[in-house]
Amino acid sequence: MKNVYMIINTSKDPTLTYSCKIMDWLKSKDCKVYIDSYVRECYAFNAIDIEDDSELDEIDFAIVLGGDGTIIHSARRLAMHEIPILGINLGNLGFLAEIEEHEWQENLEKVLEGKFEIETRMMLEAQIYTNGILIEEGFCLNDVVISRMALSRMVGFSIYVNDEFVNYYSADGIIIATPTGSTAYNLSANGPILAPHNEMIVMTPICPHSLTARSIVLSSNDIVRITFEHNRRSWDNDLMVTIDGQEGKEINNDAEIIIQKADLKTRLIQIEGHNFYHILRRKLGGN
Amino acid sequence: MKNVYMIINTSKDPTLTYSCKIMDWLKSKDCKVYIDSYVRECYAFNAIDIEDDSELDEIDFAIVLGGDGTIIHSARRLAMHEIPILGINLGNLGFLAEIEEHEWQENLEKVLEGKFEIETRMMLEAQIYTNGILIEEGFCLNDVVISRMALSRMVGFSIYVNDEFVNYYSADGIIIATPTGSTAYNLSANGPILAPHNEMIVMTPICPHSLTARSIVLSSNDIVRITFEHNRRSWDNDLMVTIDGQEGKEINNDAEIIIQKADLKTRLIQIEGHNFYHILRRKLGGN
Amino acid sequence: MKNVYMIINTSKDPTLTYSCKIMDWLKSKDCKVYIDSYVRECYAFNAIDIEDDSELDEIDFAIVLGGDGTIIHSARRLAMHEIPILGINLGNLGFLAEIEEHEWQENLEKVLEGKFEIETRMMLEAQIYTNGILIEEGFCLNDVVISRMALSRMVGFSIYVNDEFVNYYSADGIIIATPTGSTAYNLSANGPILAPHNEMIVMTPICPHSLTARSIVLSSNDIVRITFEHNRRSWDNDLMVTIDGQEGKEINNDAEIIIQKADLKTRLIQIEGHNFYHILRRKLGGN
Amino acid sequence: MKNVYMIINTSKDPTLTYSCKIMDWLKSKDCKVYIDSYVRECYAFNAIDIEDDSELDEIDFAIVLGGDGTIIHSARRLAMHEIPILGINLGNLGFLAEIEEHEWQENLEKVLEGKFEIETRMMLEAQIYTNGILIEEGFCLNDVVISRMALSRMVGFSIYVNDEFVNYYSADGIIIATPTGSTAYNLSANGPILAPHNEMIVMTPICPHSLTARSIVLSSNDIVRITFEHNRRSWDNDLMVTIDGQEGKEINNDAEIIIQKADLKTRLIQIEGHNFYHILRRKLGGN
Repeated sequence: MKNVYMIINTSKDPTLTYSCKIMDWLKSKDCKVYIDSYVRECYAFNAIDIEDDSELDEIDFAIVLGGDGTIIHSARRLAMHEIPILGINLGNLGFLAEIEEHEWQENLEKVLEGKFEIETRMMLEAQIYTNGILIEEGFCLNDVVISRMALSRMVGFSIYVNDEFVNYYSADGIIIATPTGSTAYNLSANGPILAPHNEMIVMTPICPHSLTARSIVLSSNDIVRITFEHNRRSWDNDLMVTIDGQEGKEINNDAEIIIQKADLKTRLIQIEGHNFYHILRRKLGGN
Repeated sequence: MKNVYMIINTSKDPTLTYSCKIMDWLKSKDCKVYIDSYVRECYAFNAIDIEDDSELDEIDFAIVLGGDGTIIHSARRLAMHEIPILGINLGNLGFLAEIEEHEWQENLEKVLEGKFEIETRMMLEAQIYTNGILIEEGFCLNDVVISRMALSRMVGFSIYVNDEFVNYYSADGIIIATPTGSTAYNLSANGPILAPHNEMIVMTPICPHSLTARSIVLSSNDIVRITFEHNRRSWDNDLMVTIDGQEGKEINNDAEIIIQKADLKTRLIQIEGHNFYHILRRKLGGN
Repeated sequence: MKNVYMIINTSKDPTLTYSCKIMDWLKSKDCKVYIDSYVRECYAFNAIDIEDDSELDEIDFAIVLGGDGTIIHSARRLAMHEIPILGINLGNLGFLAEIEEHEWQENLEKVLEGKFEIETRMMLEAQIYTNGILIEEGFCLNDVVISRMALSRMVGFSIYVNDEFVNYYSADGIIIATPTGSTAYNLSANGPILAPHNEMIVMTPICPHSLTARSIVLSSNDIVRITFEHNRRSWDNDLMVTIDGQEGKEINNDAEIIIQKADLKTRLIQIEGHNFYHILRRKLGGN
Repeated sequence: MKNVYMIINTSKDPTLTYSCKIMDWLKSKDCKVYIDSYVRECYAFNAIDIEDDSELDEIDFAIVLGGDGTIIHSARRLAMHEIPILGINLGNLGFLAEIEEHEWQENLEKVLEGKFEIETRMMLEAQIYTNGILIEEGFCLNDVVISRMALSRMVGFSIYVNDEFVNYYSADGIIIATPTGSTAYNLSANGPILAPHNEMIVMTPICPHSLTARSIVLSSNDIVRITFEHNRRSWDNDLMVTIDGQEGKEINNDAEIIIQKADLKTRLIQIEGHNFYHILRRKLGGN
């Protein structure tokens, strides 16, 4: 008997018809199904409430119904409790949510029979300091983005790796991404693809003023530090840190940001037959 | 006897020592020197006030003391009165302000003797409509930028050229630049250099989601129309139009933006010995 | 009664079944059909031989059966006799051969009824000099490529535009392309798309050693000159000029290459309903 | 007493004046100096011949006088005998030859006193098979490049990583580089910088036909396999493999190339005060 936590992007399954079908099937297989209380309340979904995250320790695995965004959104909570994730894709092709909508039953059967592997994905931890005091901390599976606020065209920042000065950049911003995040915003900003089974960090400046600025790939043990001490113009003061595209934190020139590999890891349930390069070819087209 | 309008970036000549030296010399050559009234008031600068832009019709040429930014800032006003511009560069090497700080006297002598040519530069006109009503209009020498506001990661927009549909883009934004503007923000966003004596328009998407999106170079007669009708997400609603980096106008999905060659032109005084490729090599380095 | 010249890529219609169908239909419409003598001999194709290019003056229009490559290959000959081209596409989607295989009849009817427009496309002329003596001349619709021969990794060359020095480049080579050629090799080398109705020239370095080297877009009146006088290494001596991908000419460091707009133009028959951006979207994908 | 092997790029020190100064100093410090026999013969250089590579086992460290190219050229031989390298730069700034010409004495003193660290650099091994038979093998510190021969514009190849199909590419070629090689040809072809202390592999297509083709960064344990089985055109048959820019091997469509981390490593003598990012800033410029 398994304890299964269903995380549902209700905008992609608004009537919960699809989710209920899966829940009923899981119950018929003697699983206990857990759900976020706000979903159960709104939808009269007949499952056990997760009222407090401490209950997550009971969970055997999570089914995420939505897409890559929904997985990204839940990644930290699930990583903290070491819960493996099976992503079911209700929208566009995803890198993380490998199971397509219609394939759910055959794949869930394999999961219940233990016919799967766990692929771990590296995460990043970002810490924001002001005058040496930690004011904010966050974890991410994709990326940390430092960018300008509207109206201020350029951000000036200095990058240090393991306390060695790398360079000063004038740019729209910079992306610090994991291998998982390398195929997201990093790719739009001209960064390279990092094969997802690796532990690496990629730094990609966004629209850098200097034409020689390039993506730099670091080892997963490198510690990145970003400061704004040389900013020359007052309007460079409007900066923002965004962690996995979800939390925008305004900062100013006093801030110092430390980004490094997190202790947490995301665990993806991988069922035979899916692979990264196959998805990459379909996503990017090619030939 | 010439009427000379001095436009001074007071942050680059805070004591006006340099500006006064030029003014005194001009007066010694029987020139009448005009200045913006706010400068004269603050600094007791002994020149004739420009109180109303209609007085600009009297001006023979303008000296802009500052850099490319100061020229860009004044470009529309000077273009409307067909005033040629001599830019003196008080900071970094400029593409427009070709005269270096110490070269002022020899070059001004040439200008007073008529030993110069006028190089015209194409400008753009941007019109913003909401529900078919013109709500804003602007002119620029560099570029029109449509971008996201903070927090909204992507903008979705459709581009039409002469009413033919070009493509739908998801991106951080798009730059519509003149040849003059091609070496500014456009270059950071991976756009090509347009030789400045040409009349052309370049459209460069900023961090496009699709990896196949590229800069497109249009003829100067092409009319670009940008709409946001297919935006799918509410947070795509936070859009901004920036004209020559100076006027940020918030718009929303109802807006329609028309960009085309302006009737106005910027007139740059060009003295023998300066040329674009020489500056380009120094700016970009190379080999 | 029209004189129609059929140019057939026999590797794409090896049995000539398709070509014969079109020929028979043309004859039924009182057209005289001309063909290259080598095709007629090999295939017993019942059409009039073109034995000498002077006969091309009789031709009203050419039908090119193949693809963009076949049109490129015939472009110079047809341009010299001002013959409009209708391209029928027997392979992948083309930018020039707009008619799809199955659409031939309805489009040919329109052509015979005069329901079409002629779109002219700018061509380039390349001249290769050694010690001031013209040793080779060529015309192209797409591009002139100067590149290394195998084994020599870098080419060093200086570019002049209208006798102004632009820059010295170390690179794998350089592409000088028309708007038509901008979507060919130029695009792979990171160059911009030039809207095809324009007259412009784009220069794109191939894998330049300097990271600041960028595509430069010139006016169609600019004259490009390329020299190799500063080449430092003997193995830089193995250079090649390729004109429309078809004629490879070995040159060495003494050579000087002049590239400018040709007097010749390619004339494409354009039937309503086809347009460049539509093809671009299908070729590049997008969104 | 140390055994020191001097490797001299005689084109950069043609009179050997500089080399002799270093040799004399080394002898005054009781070092035994070894040299390649062809150098000693030509220049009457008073040092011990290396007549056979087995003698390299006696060597404590090598001084390479030249530049990065000279180090690359010697890398395999020195790696096989685990000889640390001190590179003295006689030309342009180098990434590997960190010691500038005038700094030789102070740095050699530190080396003799043992005040240095050894930085190891990952190397690659390339194997070329035809019909399953190994026909060529090579080692490199920078990169393996598969490219077209002259005249054949595109190469078509399939990439597999650990026997998983990655993609089919049409391109001018592909670069498989180490972190050391990431700042060489890879950078010109738009690839990312890999911090040199890492063990990673980067694959960068050269002028790919598909605009979605991007650099992919792999772990150092990944095995890359390249085949040409889907090449459609006869002229795609002219292929070349180049290993560290030095050995060009012609291959054809039957070939299969395996590239993986070599067992060999290059050992660089690193003296305090030099670091990669400092050189990168000077090489690339920036701001």
